[in-house]
Amino acid sequence: MTQNVIADWPAVAPKLISVAAGRAPADMVIRGGIWVNVHTRESLPGHDICIAEGRIACVVGDAGERIGPDTQVIEADGRYMIPGLCDAHMHIESGMLTPAEFSRAVIPHGTTSMFHDPHEIANVLGLDGVRMMHDEAILQPVNVFTQMPSCAPSAPGLETTGFEITPEDVAEAMTWPGIVGLGEMMNFPGVAAADPKMLAEIAATQRAGKTVGGHYASPDLGDDFAAYVAGGPADDHECTREEDAIARVRQGMRSMLRLGSAWYDVEAQITAVTEKGLDPRSFILCTDDCHSGTLVHDGHMNRVVRHAIACGCDPLIALQMATLNTATHFGLEREIGSLTPGRRADVILTSDLTELPIELVIARGRVVAKDGECLVDCPHYDWPDTARQTVRLGHQLSESDFEIAAPEGANAVRANVIGVVENQAPTKALKADLPVKDGLVEMEGETIQIALVERHRATGGVTNAFVSGFGYKGRMAMASTVAHDSHHMIVVGTDRAQMALAANRLAEVGGGVTLFRDGEELAMVELPIAGLMSDAPAATVADKARKLGEAMEACGCTLNNAYMQHSLLALVVIPELRISDLGLVDVRTFQRIELFEALS
Amino acid sequence: MTQNVIADWPAVAPKLISVAAGRAPADMVIRGGIWVNVHTRESLPGHDICIAEGRIACVVGDAGERIGPDTQVIEADGRYMIPGLCDAHMHIESGMLTPAEFSRAVIPHGTTSMFHDPHEIANVLGLDGVRMMHDEAILQPVNVFTQMPSCAPSAPGLETTGFEITPEDVAEAMTWPGIVGLGEMMNFPGVAAADPKMLAEIAATQRAGKTVGGHYASPDLGDDFAAYVAGGPADDHECTREEDAIARVRQGMRSMLRLGSAWYDVEAQITAVTEKGLDPRSFILCTDDCHSGTLVHDGHMNRVVRHAIACGCDPLIALQMATLNTATHFGLEREIGSLTPGRRADVILTSDLTELPIELVIARGRVVAKDGECLVDCPHYDWPDTARQTVRLGHQLSESDFEIAAPEGANAVRANVIGVVENQAPTKALKADLPVKDGLVEMEGETIQIALVERHRATGGVTNAFVSGFGYKGRMAMASTVAHDSHHMIVVGTDRAQMALAANRLAEVGGGVTLFRDGEELAMVELPIAGLMSDAPAATVADKARKLGEAMEACGCTLNNAYMQHSLLALVVIPELRISDLGLVDVRTFQRIELFEALS
Repeated sequence: MTQNVIADWPAVAPKLISVAAGRAPADMVIRGGIWVNVHTRESLPGHDICIAEGRIACVVGDAGERIGPDTQVIEADGRYMIPGLCDAHMHIESGMLTPAEFSRAVIPHGTTSMFHDPHEIANVLGLDGVRMMHDEAILQPVNVFTQMPSCAPSAPGLETTGFEITPEDVAEAMTWPGIVGLGEMMNFPGVAAADPKMLAEIAATQRAGKTVGGHYASPDLGDDFAAYVAGGPADDHECTREEDAIARVRQGMRSMLRLGSAWYDVEAQITAVTEKGLDPRSFILCTDDCHSGTLVHDGHMNRVVRHAIACGCDPLIALQMATLNTATHFGLEREIGSLTPGRRADVILTSDLTELPIELVIARGRVVAKDGECLVDCPHYDWPDTARQTVRLGHQLSESDFEIAAPEGANAVRANVIGVVENQAPTKALKADLPVKDGLVEMEGETIQIALVERHRATGGVTNAFVSGFGYKGRMAMASTVAHDSHHMIVVGTDRAQMALAANRLAEVGGGVTLFRDGEELAMVELPIAGLMSDAPAATVADKARKLGEAMEACGCTLNNAYMQHSLLALVVIPELRISDLGLVDVRTFQRIELFEALS
Repeated sequence: MTQNVIADWPAVAPKLISVAAGRAPADMVIRGGIWVNVHTRESLPGHDICIAEGRIACVVGDAGERIGPDTQVIEADGRYMIPGLCDAHMHIESGMLTPAEFSRAVIPHGTTSMFHDPHEIANVLGLDGVRMMHDEAILQPVNVFTQMPSCAPSAPGLETTGFEITPEDVAEAMTWPGIVGLGEMMNFPGVAAADPKMLAEIAATQRAGKTVGGHYASPDLGDDFAAYVAGGPADDHECTREEDAIARVRQGMRSMLRLGSAWYDVEAQITAVTEKGLDPRSFILCTDDCHSGTLVHDGHMNRVVRHAIACGCDPLIALQMATLNTATHFGLEREIGSLTPGRRADVILTSDLTELPIELVIARGRVVAKDGECLVDCPHYDWPDTARQTVRLGHQLSESDFEIAAPEGANAVRANVIGVVENQAPTKALKADLPVKDGLVEMEGETIQIALVERHRATGGVTNAFVSGFGYKGRMAMASTVAHDSHHMIVVGTDRAQMALAANRLAEVGGGVTLFRDGEELAMVELPIAGLMSDAPAATVADKARKLGEAMEACGCTLNNAYMQHSLLALVVIPELRISDLGLVDVRTFQRIELFEALS
């Protein structure tokens, strides 16, 4: 299987010129549409787009002689012709899908360019995993550009990942054909402290002439922010307030406004343009993370653009934020992002610029989707066993692996407990007094057990701790190999036997998410690739994920986005309390802490 | 002498971060200014710019601790801090100055970045000449980026240049440190005809990731224009009408609006932004050609920005057109064009955004000009003899070299005459009936002689013809080795003896412009480098050029910009009638024509 190659502009220039000059027929002509021009910010009725060799040859009032007997004519019938939409920053793994199936899911929504950061697989499989994602990405019939992940581990010293990313890895990746830059530099304290490893990764990217992605997830706009900007990141999608977005753009960064499945950061920030009237060129739309259910039921970048318009943004400006602005940022302005000569012929037909129905999608001069249906093959990479056998537990787990021994002689303990808060990524650092029975600490009430099961190196390691807030009842356990960012296995349960069942089951299927109650598997989402992704279609995965949610609810958990809460409990960069393979971590101080306090 | 190096961003990132974080003192702080932010299009009072290692470390409300005992503090005192101005397309040779002396002339006007196309020297000295210009350019204390000339000869088959530029030359130049792209692709019929040589030059540039400059000097916006755009040029500065500018931008090119010494193309086109309300990001200001007198008396890019503002453009938008828009176009947005971290510290202080007095200029963190005075050394390249001895006539010319023999037996002739038209680059193809005496055609009335003297290969060739419209009286001749684009020598005179004197004189001094009357040299501008440039300061050259103009006037020529008319008479790409080393050329048909018509 080889790269889905589109010949570069100079290779096809003679043909494009011949078509534009009217000396040769086009391969395809889109006739009689309203040309949405993102360079001038105009809608220009009565235009034809002539396409050859996958690229736009010309946009003219009348294609005329450029339509030959073999030219495929698409009647725009007065509809708007807009550039294919670009997702400026996103993680394919968040959809639990491979690049191929993710592409197949978003093409009918008009997404023809993605800038994806395979950060999750980098934690599991290192540079090799990134290369596999990259290699599947460049097979696709749309443009899937890869950002080289920058931060694996995310929290050095506080967790152990499957592999680590080094500056040498970054330098190597910059030579691959589909690499467009460095993925979000989330070690912002490291950059502000001039950490040599982080700066070496940024340097390798800058010297390759590529774009350094940013991630400054702090409301502090003082010295630390200034130091981070001076380090070189060129964009940021972690802002939540208007003042955050404005600060980024004033400092010469692009502000990426995010609407993901669980991120709602556009509305609060787009006022920088709609109310403050700032030049919109440095504002870009992205999704960051979309679940498969969102892709199946709600859309992708079309959802983001629609939302921006619903927030009061001029439709042409909103479209610029999902096309030209993105292309310019990544140095791809003469390749994608507008309907002009030489660019890849990525075109959407829509009859309304506000509701943005995606009626026809053309990518590289081919009709790839019509009325919500994908009409094109999205080839799968031949994922090797190394990618499919990533759940290594060392031994079959049993109830005893999840036992928490009380301190010698204690009748009760005061435990540090991870408190889940609905609709918030941060957790609370709680305390609970728990009984001891036969030398083991018992769960009580809302306080149930959580375990971080090492799965990369088969160490057999199990870190046990307590969590509250899920609302689970009865004898159950849920386990997931999606466990940001190091992606070991997180098991949460009310019963140790169920916890062992769930963990062993995931080892058996090579990863995924499962929920057991009373010895029975209520739901399962198989994620055999790196324990992160299915290679099934989005609809299948979305359906399984829905059933998982229903099973969680049946077990008493009514939290919004409860699965996401589960998968984030090992994310040792977001306060307050998290679990890792090295123990319990207080993310307010970036220190490991003990499970128990001495009882007074 | 070595390149005037500024360390790249990654090399100095640790220092920039330390300064931004407040852990280390800045080298320079500009204190208490209004931050003109070209990203957001805002003027933000009360800011300090902190600079280290020639780059901006941070822009903050209060530099505070970043001012140490050795920090140079510049008090902005409430003035505007604007980014150094960029000239997006220009020819240094038009000033008859070297890159060093051109830089010295424009630095006090706030120009800190130039994108220059050494097209003229390429015609005389080929790739070696381009390299010399490039090598002097990178010695300068400001940013002088070189565009590799694309078209030497400009009119293949109609003229013989000193050297020709090949696609291989272009590919080689793309590897040089100061090359930023391809200079104006003026062979627009060639591109529209898919000429392999022109397309190979474009391909070499595109594949090097650099910018292809355009030049489509035709009002035709039909098929030929479409074909030219499809060929790949990314900008155009040859537009004169609003519709031209709009057409370029709609097709995904940048429209460069030009105000040179003799180009006045801003006013008619800037209405695309000021009245039509188009997105201004794709509009860029440039000079193209400035004479030394303009630099000395009127300004440079500050003159263009002021003019754009006087034409009704919002000052912040006009500034964007001379800073950020230019930087983005050339892929240098993270290097120049805004006052933001990591960028070269090129800053102007001005107390008024409309009149734009250039009060202080800082380049790469150094004060380079104050109140109109250049305070910095602009190093000269050590121009070799090959560049200084370029006027090779083969033999001493005499009156007889300029004799025009009548057809055998004719008593009178009807001659094709080049008609000069005031304030227009195009000439008129006129006819004149002229007497014959002793077998030689005589000048009569307004119709005087013009000669194209071969000077590159010492062939001894002299092409004689007739010109009218200068208004010269008495016995005089003017000669110039600036003779676009092949830069042989153009001699215009009323008297053959004076013509020989003038031509021989230029051979003696190695090129320039001279005017003789009655055997006496009335004026001389020595241009010893390639016969195109002086290495004297701009004021000296401007003074000599002024005296030349006065001498022309003394001889009866009252045309506006008469010297320019003289130097363009061999420009065999602009209608209607021109002279070349190969003969008289009808540029309406691109055919050589005979000097005489048969008399009826």
